[in-house]
Amino acid sequence: MKTMKVNLDRMAANSYTIHIGDGIMDRMGLILARSGVAQRYVIVTDDHVDALHGGRVQAALEKADLIVDRIAVAPGEAAKDIRTVLALAEKLTGLGADRHTALVALGGGVVGDLTGFVASIYMRGIPVIQVPTTLLAQVDSSIGGKTGVDIAAGKNLLGTFHQPKGVFIDIDFLRMLPEAQLRNGLAEVIKCAVIESPELLDDIEDAAAKGGLRETAFLERVITTACRIKKELVEIDERDRGLRRILNFGHTLGHAVEAASGYALSHGESVAIGMVASAAISERMHYLPTEDRKRIESVIRAVGLPDRIPGKLAPGEIMSRLASDKKKEGETIHFILLKKLGLPFVNGGVPEGIVRETIKRLQR
Amino acid sequence: MKTMKVNLDRMAANSYTIHIGDGIMDRMGLILARSGVAQRYVIVTDDHVDALHGGRVQAALEKADLIVDRIAVAPGEAAKDIRTVLALAEKLTGLGADRHTALVALGGGVVGDLTGFVASIYMRGIPVIQVPTTLLAQVDSSIGGKTGVDIAAGKNLLGTFHQPKGVFIDIDFLRMLPEAQLRNGLAEVIKCAVIESPELLDDIEDAAAKGGLRETAFLERVITTACRIKKELVEIDERDRGLRRILNFGHTLGHAVEAASGYALSHGESVAIGMVASAAISERMHYLPTEDRKRIESVIRAVGLPDRIPGKLAPGEIMSRLASDKKKEGETIHFILLKKLGLPFVNGGVPEGIVRETIKRLQR
Repeated sequence: MKTMKVNLDRMAANSYTIHIGDGIMDRMGLILARSGVAQRYVIVTDDHVDALHGGRVQAALEKADLIVDRIAVAPGEAAKDIRTVLALAEKLTGLGADRHTALVALGGGVVGDLTGFVASIYMRGIPVIQVPTTLLAQVDSSIGGKTGVDIAAGKNLLGTFHQPKGVFIDIDFLRMLPEAQLRNGLAEVIKCAVIESPELLDDIEDAAAKGGLRETAFLERVITTACRIKKELVEIDERDRGLRRILNFGHTLGHAVEAASGYALSHGESVAIGMVASAAISERMHYLPTEDRKRIESVIRAVGLPDRIPGKLAPGEIMSRLASDKKKEGETIHFILLKKLGLPFVNGGVPEGIVRETIKRLQR
Repeated sequence: MKTMKVNLDRMAANSYTIHIGDGIMDRMGLILARSGVAQRYVIVTDDHVDALHGGRVQAALEKADLIVDRIAVAPGEAAKDIRTVLALAEKLTGLGADRHTALVALGGGVVGDLTGFVASIYMRGIPVIQVPTTLLAQVDSSIGGKTGVDIAAGKNLLGTFHQPKGVFIDIDFLRMLPEAQLRNGLAEVIKCAVIESPELLDDIEDAAAKGGLRETAFLERVITTACRIKKELVEIDERDRGLRRILNFGHTLGHAVEAASGYALSHGESVAIGMVASAAISERMHYLPTEDRKRIESVIRAVGLPDRIPGKLAPGEIMSRLASDKKKEGETIHFILLKKLGLPFVNGGVPEGIVRETIKRLQR
């Protein structure tokens, strides 16, 4: 038998810059024009975001002499579908998009995940720029390169790691954001605070107390901190094989209640419940002081997120969703627990009885 | 505006080993078991290959105490379809395949491209092992990490670069290979000889003259040389941005006649015609000596491949297929031409008139 080695160990240049500010869309065009990322751009957005911001963002890019087209998909999670992927690919071909074209994902998490996925597989990969318009996407999904679409067998079951060539976070988009969506994003901000930055909890509590959760300076501060926390974890663990899993704090049970509710609970509400459950399990297993668990519940309530599981969700249904979560490895379900605020760890061995009991105690 | 850099410049460990030999399937299990690539394996193949080799390969892997499942898709290019991707993903989920599962692509180019694509997007990427069973896949598509499926707008329009974790080339598979498929592979071998290794042309001419094109020693020699040429180009240009394009020698016009024939011409026949056309254009543009052009035509005829374009293909149809080829960049069509045997170069400026005239002169 002959063997020969294909030598492909090399430096991969996947670094990129996150730009954060109020009203930065005008500057994005110049930055992209200077970057040489692509010769032309196609903005991918959804009908809602398109009506609010599509024309303005396209005009801002065109002002920098970029060639820009725009495609809008239907709004909502249903667009994270392989049919939308095919439709986008056909439209891109129709526009003559080639390997020197970049996509601009303008929208929330669905648009970001979908557009990132299309960019990663169109002609074996073209660049994508993330322009998140919701707080949730700004602090979470736009950074880190995770892309995906849903199939019958599971959410995000098909996807890639495809790092963007740049992220532009404009606080200005948040002025039009509905309250429920702001809370969705605040759930992820609270998660970042709990796992990495207890001082950020003070900031959120203060803002909630004085009704300042929409103030530009506050939003810019929490977005910057959340992005810093996320990007530091992504840098250490780009492919989500170890440390980055602590970003799933609240998500193990969160995903299970979200699915068990038939997605009547939003992602933020589900993560809020999941964080309360993880804190309760951490306390029950004698890791987390009671005062820390109470503080987590209190800040979640303060921003208007739920800290209890709706009574109508059957615990058995939640348990079976937990077992089928793709975070499962072999027969072990990973829970991210807390030793104290700012000190999370991966625990693979929470007894099923404790999980079940915690679910029951958190229901009302 | 605040900016922060996400630092993701790092060493990517994408190297892998190509194993070539006669009857190496038995050793593959031990090599994989030692490699730690995955905890379990799912063989993806097609019904034809499955009937010939599926059970034997699975048994060989199981003998090394690996956990192995097997999925067969329908044979033929039609399987390179997004519906097959979805069906495979659902089946993988049903088998409980997770991030610690690797796929084994057992088959020709279609199975390799399809399985590689599924591996690259299932749960954001799992490993794939390529086990090519046709000469074409052994010398070409199994190496280099290109994956893809076809959509209405074009072949391989959706795909990824996903390097395999290992390639196992068993000459034994070729004993059952139909003549037409052997010739398909020989077209790519001739291509490698023309662009990089004129000595290999002698070897092919000798074998053809004495009817030895199926001899194990000959096949092992040409496969090894072709793999070496391909892997050296892939090492220099993993993402097909420059030098690797010379592997497309014969493919620009080849793809166009293949499509224009409604795929009645095989890939190998089309590439053979494309190579003759590229050589003719190279001669016409005063790059290539006439004797070299004649020698290319002669070796192509010697192995039973066509050196002329079927008269029923309309030149206009071929020209319009050329213009829509995805190798196009902006308005320029890349042709790989020859300065002499072993010295190809990328020429973006062949006048349309010369292309059209060459097509007409090569028809009969």
